[in-house]
Amino acid sequence: MSSALSGVEASAIGLLKRAVEQDGKGKAQEALVCYKEGIKLLMEVMRETTDQIRKQAFRQKIEQYMERAEKLKNHVDSQIEAGKYHQAIQITNDSTGHSYRSMFTPYLDELVTEVHIEDPYIRSNHQIYNLLRFCELLVMSVAPVKRIHLLTGRDENVHLQHNKLGELQRSLAEHSVEMIVSYSDTLHDRVVRFNNGWIIKIGRGLDYFKRTGQYSIGFCDMDLRRCHETTVDVFHSKHTKDG
Amino acid sequence: MSSALSGVEASAIGLLKRAVEQDGKGKAQEALVCYKEGIKLLMEVMRETTDQIRKQAFRQKIEQYMERAEKLKNHVDSQIEAGKYHQAIQITNDSTGHSYRSMFTPYLDELVTEVHIEDPYIRSNHQIYNLLRFCELLVMSVAPVKRIHLLTGRDENVHLQHNKLGELQRSLAEHSVEMIVSYSDTLHDRVVRFNNGWIIKIGRGLDYFKRTGQYSIGFCDMDLRRCHETTVDVFHSKHTKDG
Repeated sequence: MSSALSGVEASAIGLLKRAVEQDGKGKAQEALVCYKEGIKLLMEVMRETTDQIRKQAFRQKIEQYMERAEKLKNHVDSQIEAGKYHQAIQITNDSTGHSYRSMFTPYLDELVTEVHIEDPYIRSNHQIYNLLRFCELLVMSVAPVKRIHLLTGRDENVHLQHNKLGELQRSLAEHSVEMIVSYSDTLHDRVVRFNNGWIIKIGRGLDYFKRTGQYSIGFCDMDLRRCHETTVDVFHSKHTKDG
Repeated sequence: MSSALSGVEASAIGLLKRAVEQDGKGKAQEALVCYKEGIKLLMEVMRETTDQIRKQAFRQKIEQYMERAEKLKNHVDSQIEAGKYHQAIQITNDSTGHSYRSMFTPYLDELVTEVHIEDPYIRSNHQIYNLLRFCELLVMSVAPVKRIHLLTGRDENVHLQHNKLGELQRSLAEHSVEMIVSYSDTLHDRVVRFNNGWIIKIGRGLDYFKRTGQYSIGFCDMDLRRCHETTVDVFHSKHTKDG
């Protein structure tokens, strides 16, 4: 197992190095994710280590990183408290690793029961699949989502759009989730709001994935799909409307 | 955050309870997964706890569970060492949570460079998507897979099957993975072998998912897809052939 272990150790060190870098740059949320994942891996290494002296050294390192991550977490919490939180994430052209799971999971917790999606382009087939994947993420997540409010534009073929969204609605109902669909012809903004206060604005809305071959790697797993360039702005509001 | 926290704590307790149950029944591999996930969540709770007495109590619990998990891990390792490892997992009719990620991840580590797939039915469109999803898992996993050997049967429309597999081969090549396809008309067994010694035999091969609506929850995320009943047998061989 030694070579497998050193691989995990290397990954842990890489992540923690990145955490410290991001931390230095003031990118708190990314740093927190890296600390968390890095600490997790380092704990795995510690568990597998039989040498008691190395084990103790790992334990000390883990505690140091935990302490720093806790302080940072408290800092982020106080920013949120003061209503000052804003983070801009850049998705670069042709980059990968931006599935909805990767993008939205950090903002989904046990307090999210309602989700608002405003996106003028949930119309064509691949856009409805975007919505389906986003809904699947909600169903799989820790968030006990009960209601999804979708506001979108009407497709040229309204009938088809309505049928597809209807199937999704019935399917969500089987998972005890109600989806309420409204249409607007003047909608421009693209925004996802969770009722725990997180607001995620993606320049392109949910439609930021590039096309790929039908039998190619990245057709099913969106973390492997190349992306269009777009900016993601994350805000937090303690006083979001629920209606 | 207190209600979110107590949710995580409840999940942690649930997992650790399940770990102890499975442990008691001799289901070592499942117990290990539950211990690992449960400990991970309990660490999150500990990190978020500001009360120093509670924090210390969590730390003690975590260490107890870690100790048990380590002992169990050593036991599994010794079974593998003796060539005695065998585990049967039952996928029940209509159950969910059996994506390839959930099924195969426990057996993929940094030692896996070659994968053998024998499955007579990688023929029709949805079966080729099964293979695509399996390959995506390999590309995303920690395993540095360099070569995939596929042995399958010829479809009635060999030309179409060949074209689809060809696109997948070219796409894998871009990820530095070579896929070698061979055909057999007499193949019956369904087996996946990793060259770290793990052998996974699924009664139905990769084709154990039920059909679902095209715009329904579970169409894209296979952890949400209902399954056919099938048995999965996991073996470990220290002396697997590589060829």
